[in-house]
Amino acid sequence: MDTINEIIRWGAAITFIDIIDFIGTFAFAISGIRLASTKQFDWFGAYVVGAATAIGGGTIRDIMLDVPLFWMHDPFYLICTGLALLWVIIFRKYLIRMHYTFFVFDAVGLALFTVVGIQKTIECGLPLWVGIIMGTMTGAAGGVIRDVLINEVPLIFRKEIYAMACIIGGVVFTVCTLIGLPPLFTHLACGAAVFITRVVAVKYHICLPTLRSEED
Amino acid sequence: MDTINEIIRWGAAITFIDIIDFIGTFAFAISGIRLASTKQFDWFGAYVVGAATAIGGGTIRDIMLDVPLFWMHDPFYLICTGLALLWVIIFRKYLIRMHYTFFVFDAVGLALFTVVGIQKTIECGLPLWVGIIMGTMTGAAGGVIRDVLINEVPLIFRKEIYAMACIIGGVVFTVCTLIGLPPLFTHLACGAAVFITRVVAVKYHICLPTLRSEED
Amino acid sequence: MDTINEIIRWGAAITFIDIIDFIGTFAFAISGIRLASTKQFDWFGAYVVGAATAIGGGTIRDIMLDVPLFWMHDPFYLICTGLALLWVIIFRKYLIRMHYTFFVFDAVGLALFTVVGIQKTIECGLPLWVGIIMGTMTGAAGGVIRDVLINEVPLIFRKEIYAMACIIGGVVFTVCTLIGLPPLFTHLACGAAVFITRVVAVKYHICLPTLRSEED
Repeated sequence: MDTINEIIRWGAAITFIDIIDFIGTFAFAISGIRLASTKQFDWFGAYVVGAATAIGGGTIRDIMLDVPLFWMHDPFYLICTGLALLWVIIFRKYLIRMHYTFFVFDAVGLALFTVVGIQKTIECGLPLWVGIIMGTMTGAAGGVIRDVLINEVPLIFRKEIYAMACIIGGVVFTVCTLIGLPPLFTHLACGAAVFITRVVAVKYHICLPTLRSEED
Repeated sequence: MDTINEIIRWGAAITFIDIIDFIGTFAFAISGIRLASTKQFDWFGAYVVGAATAIGGGTIRDIMLDVPLFWMHDPFYLICTGLALLWVIIFRKYLIRMHYTFFVFDAVGLALFTVVGIQKTIECGLPLWVGIIMGTMTGAAGGVIRDVLINEVPLIFRKEIYAMACIIGGVVFTVCTLIGLPPLFTHLACGAAVFITRVVAVKYHICLPTLRSEED
Repeated sequence: MDTINEIIRWGAAITFIDIIDFIGTFAFAISGIRLASTKQFDWFGAYVVGAATAIGGGTIRDIMLDVPLFWMHDPFYLICTGLALLWVIIFRKYLIRMHYTFFVFDAVGLALFTVVGIQKTIECGLPLWVGIIMGTMTGAAGGVIRDVLINEVPLIFRKEIYAMACIIGGVVFTVCTLIGLPPLFTHLACGAAVFITRVVAVKYHICLPTLRSEED
């Protein structure tokens, strides 16, 4: 009975995570494709920027961890980016009205990608502080690659709390692990911390202090 | 007799591929060095941008496939980049007249690099669709790194058919493989598809549609 | 007796190298953080740019050599970057007066990172010419990543002798190795060559020739 219950719970979890994974990948790709459209990129360029935003962080993580790249064994992520491109081409004029939805989707993706990044890192036998860095990389590095490709100063270095939400989630993950909570709870707490931090930071315009330059 | 014939054919193929490899590497390096010169780079900077253009795509491919970097075991590629730098320094004033020659050389290189990228990927046991991506990366990612280093928006995201030629070549490679054609024919067909697509696209100014932004 | 002497000498060398490592990492991080401050980055962005400058070169080297990333097994480097950020926040107004000190620290770091990069490469069984490239990468690639992240044309491609100092150090390393000098001497000679080249080049404004563009 226990085993059966576990399998059912596991199956349900997989499906749920798959849905979140789709939502997150889709939202990340949309954010890249929309910015590419402001620079008059063609469809190919937009697709590449979308893919870089969606899978760039995880790719850097996997290269740094020296494990096989996650998207090479599952066409899901690149198909998802293709659907995002189609979506932008077709619903271009309505995207602005979907702003809030995509913000929530993006925050959900950020939460999932952070948890996945930390979990994968500790499974490689690396310490938790490396996990926090890799979780943040998984969540936020795609946006940095996106901004480098469209030749802009990376947004997350100047605006709002974005990567910091991943770091706070990572700290929650670390605390939960150190006090011995079960993985499922640890993952949920970490993801919730990322999501809530991100939403609260945007709602109340919470920013990190700007580093003042020497002339100021 | 058969074995001898095969060896002769193989020997001839190697030499032929070496020549194409030189032409392609040289043309890619020249393209990087020329763009570096428009930004007042010094000789070192120009060399680095030339090398990044010539070997950057293959380097990313090898890192992603987790195989030893191709240029570390053969100084050929970096010597070739050095010759390209010398060429630009000496024949600077005549480069504009060699425009057509270098365009053809570049297209030849693009074709070879695509075939090599796909072949190397499937030899790693990865599926053909990853091969198409890695072939395109091998051919086109060097140009993206070049444009990031000179702080410009990557050209191939906005102009003409470039990376799309690699993708079309990759589709031809896939079709040939699936219908069971011999490798030599598959490689030639793939390379020809890349070369012809590129030349035709430039001759008839064929572009992908630009992604319109939300304000348009 | 000999063994004891060796251990003492080795212990002293470790400590000395640790100090230089700290000085170099600190100076590299400071250079990244200061440039980030001119672009109104927040504290997180400044930290990331500082870390990329300090450990980016070694990270690319380790990825290319396919060895575990050096900073993942020792929090020293990221703590050091944090101290550099604190330093800039607190002593912002006095940084300009410390200009000469940081220049010397930076040159010391450049020398050490070059030696470490070459040594690590030949320990991977790669030839010395790859070592020179990896040594230069270790010393100079962090600065390139820094400039890409703040969306500027990489400084080392246009100004003064910087990466060339690493290459000259690498040539000295190669010559010393080929004539069979002991490792300790080889390392010192290589480091000294990098440091002296860098200091002399800045003192006497020695530059590489700029590559003239076709219109000139």
